[in-house]
Amino acid sequence: MAATTDQPTAPPRDHNRTREDFYGDIAPLNMTPLWEVMSSLITPEPVSRVKPCLWRYDEVRPWLLRSGDVISAKEAERRVLILENPGMPGESKITNSLYAGLQLILPGEVAPSHRHAQSALRFIVEGEGAYTAVDGERASMSRGDLILTPSWTWHDHGNETEEPTVWLDGLDIPIVQAFETSFVERYPEDSQPVSRPSGDSAARFGHNMRPFGYVAASGASPVFSYPYADYREALEQMRARDEWDVCDGLKMEFINPIDGGPVMPTISCFVQLLPKGFATDPYRSTAASVYSVVDGEGEAVIGEQAYDLHERDVIVVPSWVPVRFSAGDDLVLFSFSDRGIQQKLGLWREQRGHSPGSG
Amino acid sequence: MAATTDQPTAPPRDHNRTREDFYGDIAPLNMTPLWEVMSSLITPEPVSRVKPCLWRYDEVRPWLLRSGDVISAKEAERRVLILENPGMPGESKITNSLYAGLQLILPGEVAPSHRHAQSALRFIVEGEGAYTAVDGERASMSRGDLILTPSWTWHDHGNETEEPTVWLDGLDIPIVQAFETSFVERYPEDSQPVSRPSGDSAARFGHNMRPFGYVAASGASPVFSYPYADYREALEQMRARDEWDVCDGLKMEFINPIDGGPVMPTISCFVQLLPKGFATDPYRSTAASVYSVVDGEGEAVIGEQAYDLHERDVIVVPSWVPVRFSAGDDLVLFSFSDRGIQQKLGLWREQRGHSPGSG
Amino acid sequence: MAATTDQPTAPPRDHNRTREDFYGDIAPLNMTPLWEVMSSLITPEPVSRVKPCLWRYDEVRPWLLRSGDVISAKEAERRVLILENPGMPGESKITNSLYAGLQLILPGEVAPSHRHAQSALRFIVEGEGAYTAVDGERASMSRGDLILTPSWTWHDHGNETEEPTVWLDGLDIPIVQAFETSFVERYPEDSQPVSRPSGDSAARFGHNMRPFGYVAASGASPVFSYPYADYREALEQMRARDEWDVCDGLKMEFINPIDGGPVMPTISCFVQLLPKGFATDPYRSTAASVYSVVDGEGEAVIGEQAYDLHERDVIVVPSWVPVRFSAGDDLVLFSFSDRGIQQKLGLWREQRGHSPGSG
Amino acid sequence: MAATTDQPTAPPRDHNRTREDFYGDIAPLNMTPLWEVMSSLITPEPVSRVKPCLWRYDEVRPWLLRSGDVISAKEAERRVLILENPGMPGESKITNSLYAGLQLILPGEVAPSHRHAQSALRFIVEGEGAYTAVDGERASMSRGDLILTPSWTWHDHGNETEEPTVWLDGLDIPIVQAFETSFVERYPEDSQPVSRPSGDSAARFGHNMRPFGYVAASGASPVFSYPYADYREALEQMRARDEWDVCDGLKMEFINPIDGGPVMPTISCFVQLLPKGFATDPYRSTAASVYSVVDGEGEAVIGEQAYDLHERDVIVVPSWVPVRFSAGDDLVLFSFSDRGIQQKLGLWREQRGHSPGSG
Repeated sequence: MAATTDQPTAPPRDHNRTREDFYGDIAPLNMTPLWEVMSSLITPEPVSRVKPCLWRYDEVRPWLLRSGDVISAKEAERRVLILENPGMPGESKITNSLYAGLQLILPGEVAPSHRHAQSALRFIVEGEGAYTAVDGERASMSRGDLILTPSWTWHDHGNETEEPTVWLDGLDIPIVQAFETSFVERYPEDSQPVSRPSGDSAARFGHNMRPFGYVAASGASPVFSYPYADYREALEQMRARDEWDVCDGLKMEFINPIDGGPVMPTISCFVQLLPKGFATDPYRSTAASVYSVVDGEGEAVIGEQAYDLHERDVIVVPSWVPVRFSAGDDLVLFSFSDRGIQQKLGLWREQRGHSPGSG
Repeated sequence: MAATTDQPTAPPRDHNRTREDFYGDIAPLNMTPLWEVMSSLITPEPVSRVKPCLWRYDEVRPWLLRSGDVISAKEAERRVLILENPGMPGESKITNSLYAGLQLILPGEVAPSHRHAQSALRFIVEGEGAYTAVDGERASMSRGDLILTPSWTWHDHGNETEEPTVWLDGLDIPIVQAFETSFVERYPEDSQPVSRPSGDSAARFGHNMRPFGYVAASGASPVFSYPYADYREALEQMRARDEWDVCDGLKMEFINPIDGGPVMPTISCFVQLLPKGFATDPYRSTAASVYSVVDGEGEAVIGEQAYDLHERDVIVVPSWVPVRFSAGDDLVLFSFSDRGIQQKLGLWREQRGHSPGSG
Repeated sequence: MAATTDQPTAPPRDHNRTREDFYGDIAPLNMTPLWEVMSSLITPEPVSRVKPCLWRYDEVRPWLLRSGDVISAKEAERRVLILENPGMPGESKITNSLYAGLQLILPGEVAPSHRHAQSALRFIVEGEGAYTAVDGERASMSRGDLILTPSWTWHDHGNETEEPTVWLDGLDIPIVQAFETSFVERYPEDSQPVSRPSGDSAARFGHNMRPFGYVAASGASPVFSYPYADYREALEQMRARDEWDVCDGLKMEFINPIDGGPVMPTISCFVQLLPKGFATDPYRSTAASVYSVVDGEGEAVIGEQAYDLHERDVIVVPSWVPVRFSAGDDLVLFSFSDRGIQQKLGLWREQRGHSPGSG
Repeated sequence: MAATTDQPTAPPRDHNRTREDFYGDIAPLNMTPLWEVMSSLITPEPVSRVKPCLWRYDEVRPWLLRSGDVISAKEAERRVLILENPGMPGESKITNSLYAGLQLILPGEVAPSHRHAQSALRFIVEGEGAYTAVDGERASMSRGDLILTPSWTWHDHGNETEEPTVWLDGLDIPIVQAFETSFVERYPEDSQPVSRPSGDSAARFGHNMRPFGYVAASGASPVFSYPYADYREALEQMRARDEWDVCDGLKMEFINPIDGGPVMPTISCFVQLLPKGFATDPYRSTAASVYSVVDGEGEAVIGEQAYDLHERDVIVVPSWVPVRFSAGDDLVLFSFSDRGIQQKLGLWREQRGHSPGSG
């Protein structure tokens, strides 16, 4: 290691120059002082750019259907209205790390096949019997079902029914942006060939079994369909025990049965039941969450603001902002977040109940 | 689940209205069309906002020393000149997911004790014998050493020598921003009390041993000092075998001996040796990387642009942009990136050698 | 470290003494020469003490029922006829690392509640509707079901039907013996109180979901009932694809959905379907296996010896002895082994098809 | 599933026949009653076949040297006197799951190269500068060093010094026996060629670093030499903190730096320091342990029996039998056991201090 004595000495000091002058001097060298921005970079608590926001399905639906007149699924490739957080206009985000949108596919339409580095979930909001094809297998999409199209899996969507189908898309687009790892490929045809019967993945991986000697190729679940009927029955069976968590009611996480982790490495999915009349204690965590109302109605209080909840509504809760739910009728909520990554990275925190001194 | 027949019907269609009208109609509902932005959100290959950039130490050093006149370590809390990527002015980032800066601490100064959710590495660029205290143990900081201050560990820095000390800071500030999980606490005194002798962590965890029954409290390495002498000797011993990787020469990853993973969950650290006269094949990966020249000199070609490299220089290589190195003299490079997370999330890709058709 | 010069010198050599004399001299010091036994301790290939053996259910059943006259379930604590391998008489083993037996429980009987370090599986051979209670939850036991009673779980069995119930017990008794880690406790009453509704565990863990924030307390599956109907349907769905492994037909492993591993740390469980007329290639592995014929009939050839297989028969295949199966009718086989541990320990090997030179 | 009505009925009951008659009737069917042996198979606490035993080096050494007259290293392949537990004569075991022996290699001798499924450790008791070659790299063997020859690695030993070399062998032979997974191959020459310089593995894996992109091929540590000087210094550095565990003093586990686990999947290795005058509380665990006295002298009380300890002595402590150590002089103990597997399998238990009611 050479000595540093031959380094140029600092420019002569000039007592008339200010800090601002100094900042100007170093700017051309692509340098800027930390001490002017440190308090905004490293905050005592999360300062979220995300605003609480509710999308009322009865308001949104007419415009969603109208998008069917505005553009075809084929031209759009994906006919989606992004649910864009008002705190971050123009950024195509619902939270700072996640994307959400409502996708419409009309009878006879196909959303053409492609694959991308981004991981996606589809939570069906309206319709019965359209399909999503994943790596050669078609899964039927009905109200309340959760469908996965993990990173780099070929997927297309089709609607061979007589009714429009609508689902909530949840993707990790902002995460892939943050790491600058986007890749996408289009399939030569609109629909990929069907190479596996429906139910094949569920048969192989969905019943606490897996093929002998199977080795996972990725961190995503090979089970890409989580039907409404399954989790609804599970919640009702659990209800028989009447143990309700004061913050969550009865809450389950959908898992990857190959490793017991989140369904996809970047997105964790949950469903919970709050019985009629139940009101939760306040809860906050660093994992901002997107909720879709599956069944029932109730209210969410985020920070100080109250929101009525009805079936199919979507609502977003920012990082570290307390939320309370109350159920006017048996309330079933689906939600997704980046909780799984935050835990892997040692960044996740939660606070249950009222914070000290918050009354 | 209630039927949807009672939903309001779509507003009457008006053939004079355009897509832009439609976009205007839905904007108040916090909705925007995916199809107008999809190609920019999901790109065929990573489109990096990061620009290749070199910080020449002989240019930077005078201004760094001048910062010592502009503000005290105590007033600044951390007297750091951020190395800000010219592709993202004002964002305090060197890559899209990582932060870097050069920190100066003068004889007699203390950078006061605090802890934060952000993980940090310190790679010593100049000076012999200043210290970083981590959770009650002090580590000496000398040229070429790697020091860790993992997430939520109390840490302060002090310089009891006669010379200024300078190091390269590497933090995951943008990652913590992306997930909105920032927390910070100040310690009541500037310097935390010394509760463990120097070398204690190395003795317990640094020699392929660990205390009987130890259970890790976090995903970060309990070894927070990786001395220059150790890795330099290791590289020289490896050299005896003369197996040089065409893209990397001899490259090692610093690891957490408790799980064999990256030194910290969000930051991976590496060191490599390129012998005098060695020129690497082009290499690119999705993990943008920050390099510090430890010893020797040479050249880096990033994309089409060539940069001379000298001791203590810092250079950044964007995601998916090919880089080639050549060594004018035995060249030792320290580097860090987010490779470890990208691999955990299934997002990491690399390409070795010339890409097909790139001649 | 003290020098060794003060060690006593070797006794004076006597040329008339033989190696045998030497062996006699050192025996009192609890020493014996390796070179006389090394070839039997470390063999070129596994030399199994296990003999292939078939237990024909129609032969065994009358004596099993007779055991009901000989002793009561309560007096016996567990009324089981051990299936003892003829290669290891008196050792209560079916393979060198596993135990198996056939347990009978008559109408109105209870096998009293206890818990032990040993892990157990129960594969139901005959009967409909008896129960096994595990940690407060009862699981119904019907022909073809797999029930787990993992290490240190309270469990008892009861038969409130009009018919005898018989199941195959599989335990890791020899493994617990090898490590000398046996513990057992009796419950104060014959039957533990029912604290959870039937189906509770399946609801919480059996549908690719788990309770929010659940942390596993052991390496065993929290799903302790794997019903016949589930895996039978899975096999039939898989059959639609007609991809038959030449050695296994269609073979599935039952897994622990919390980590994707074996159902219990010491025992791996499998089920496979061989279609009518199918004959497998020879296969051998180091994991000796116990098979129970669930449905159909066929033949097993173990080494050179052929065995007819009928429903409910049990057959054991030793380590590293080739086995071939052929299906006279659609053949469904349940099996268990120590494959999971062997893989964890890096000891497992397999050979598919004919060995080189074996014609 | 066919009905069982066509099963033969039980043979007519004969009231003059006894249980013993019944046992005789079923014996030919390879069946035996569990209830006669259950209490010996599943014990309330571990009932160890292992007897505490001390091998005094000053007694053993003369006979070990004499073995050099009795047979050559080459003829013996390995010239080892097995330390055979007096509780299991003829079984070549020191505990129920582990093997130990003392190996002698004289000046000029070579123990020829082979590899086997069994994992082995070598703890050097006497001599300076002989070598063990592992997969092409030679490690020097000096008093107090720990050397590994993991499963299926080629290894040979040579002594090019003027003095005999003696080490303690620890192998998992009984475990490999239990699972019936033994394989062995001889190398065509006595000594494998040297393909890597000494220190190569340590350089690549021994300093909290590893080669970039390295993927482990097995569960064993790639660091196969753990020198006395390293751990002795570590213990002295730890000593500076004066935190002594009441049962262990200062105790460290040697680890595999690739995963932080035991050095080999089947064998865990430890070293501990008890300062002069220190007496431990009683401790017992299910992991029977073999100790070698590295430095100092003291006493071990196993159950009720006291044993004097001197340098180079070997002593074995059975499963679940309490042991107390006291140090007459600074006492350094190396030990190995199967603790790591027991923990993987959920079988390991420990009890610190006096058991309830044991006074």
